[in-house]
Amino acid sequence: MSGLFMAKVTGSIVSTKKDDSLVGKKLMVVQPIDRELQHVRHEEIAVDFVGAGVGDYVLLTHGTAARSVFEQPNVAIDATIIAIIDSFD
Amino acid sequence: MSGLFMAKVTGSIVSTKKDDSLVGKKLMVVQPIDRELQHVRHEEIAVDFVGAGVGDYVLLTHGTAARSVFEQPNVAIDATIIAIIDSFD
Amino acid sequence: MSGLFMAKVTGSIVSTKKDDSLVGKKLMVVQPIDRELQHVRHEEIAVDFVGAGVGDYVLLTHGTAARSVFEQPNVAIDATIIAIIDSFD
Amino acid sequence: MSGLFMAKVTGSIVSTKKDDSLVGKKLMVVQPIDRELQHVRHEEIAVDFVGAGVGDYVLLTHGTAARSVFEQPNVAIDATIIAIIDSFD
Amino acid sequence: MSGLFMAKVTGSIVSTKKDDSLVGKKLMVVQPIDRELQHVRHEEIAVDFVGAGVGDYVLLTHGTAARSVFEQPNVAIDATIIAIIDSFD
Repeated sequence: MSGLFMAKVTGSIVSTKKDDSLVGKKLMVVQPIDRELQHVRHEEIAVDFVGAGVGDYVLLTHGTAARSVFEQPNVAIDATIIAIIDSFD
Repeated sequence: MSGLFMAKVTGSIVSTKKDDSLVGKKLMVVQPIDRELQHVRHEEIAVDFVGAGVGDYVLLTHGTAARSVFEQPNVAIDATIIAIIDSFD
Repeated sequence: MSGLFMAKVTGSIVSTKKDDSLVGKKLMVVQPIDRELQHVRHEEIAVDFVGAGVGDYVLLTHGTAARSVFEQPNVAIDATIIAIIDSFD
Repeated sequence: MSGLFMAKVTGSIVSTKKDDSLVGKKLMVVQPIDRELQHVRHEEIAVDFVGAGVGDYVLLTHGTAARSVFEQPNVAIDATIIAIIDSFD
Repeated sequence: MSGLFMAKVTGSIVSTKKDDSLVGKKLMVVQPIDRELQHVRHEEIAVDFVGAGVGDYVLLTHGTAARSVFEQPNVAIDATIIAIIDSFD
């Protein structure tokens, strides 16, 4: 599921036992949506980079792009919230 | 969803709070299509590289390819419009 | 959609406005199939590397593999026809 | 299927004949889920990095991220369990 | 479709006209399965690395992992059989 997806933040997960590169980062549950705000595909997890909260419409990136916006350590990251969507035109 | 997809540009999104590598770039909503122009899969977002507008039929690329057509900073990019389709043969 | 897929070449697209790395390359429309030649997934685009034509059964590769079979410039390529299938055993 | 997925560990596989980079690692069967614990997509395999067991809810990563949490040899790895989920908020 | 998938080997393909990195390698048709041996997703092609034959249950890897288990030339490879599954626990 690489690519740039629109999504709605629906929650978060709590994890104590995890790779060190995830420590101190927020792991958000995100539901991909289309421009009509309909749910598409399935919920996934994305690390927050822009201060997104539950209910926000956001933009997800994947793979190398998802890691590269963070300083190291970032090795385990494969999906990141890189923007908050203000409006759909 | 890596690969090269045919798509129709259906809109754009506006974002103030975003990774720096997205500043000044157009974030287009694109609906993947087949050669019969039928909708397939789901809408996603792609950064415009060729001056595409709403209604245009375009070619999307993903992943490293999507970043590499842009000068840096390009780190957050994972999907890009790399061609406008003139016709289907 | 990374991986190696069987597909049938169903057409091609014409594009004037495109990334320089696509100039002089054939952009084929390909329909992924299974071993029974049934259509699976959806049509995508792949750059031809082996002289494939409409009606040929071919093998697609994606991502880094799709770029690496070509000499540079190849940056925008994310899917390539790397073999013509003679028969299914 | 790149990205970060929630999943439930449902079993494991045993393999004698395998790439050297998999020797000594646990190959777990994982069923991707959403926040309501409903099954989504299909079962896949992930290498365990955090001591997860059958019945645990975990976080999966893919691709380069899946390899990079491990010391070498790690070449064949494309999916890894990088966290145990304590709770969904 | 990156990740580690369980699959059953269902056949092979023959190709004369192909990228040089595929010469001398076996191109197997593989049907992804779940732990109950039910078919999931669609057939794809994977290069054999472990001497797998038709009817074997195997483990597939994708992307960089699929290339890296092979010596060069390996550039066109995007999916590889990296283990034979003895049993499901």
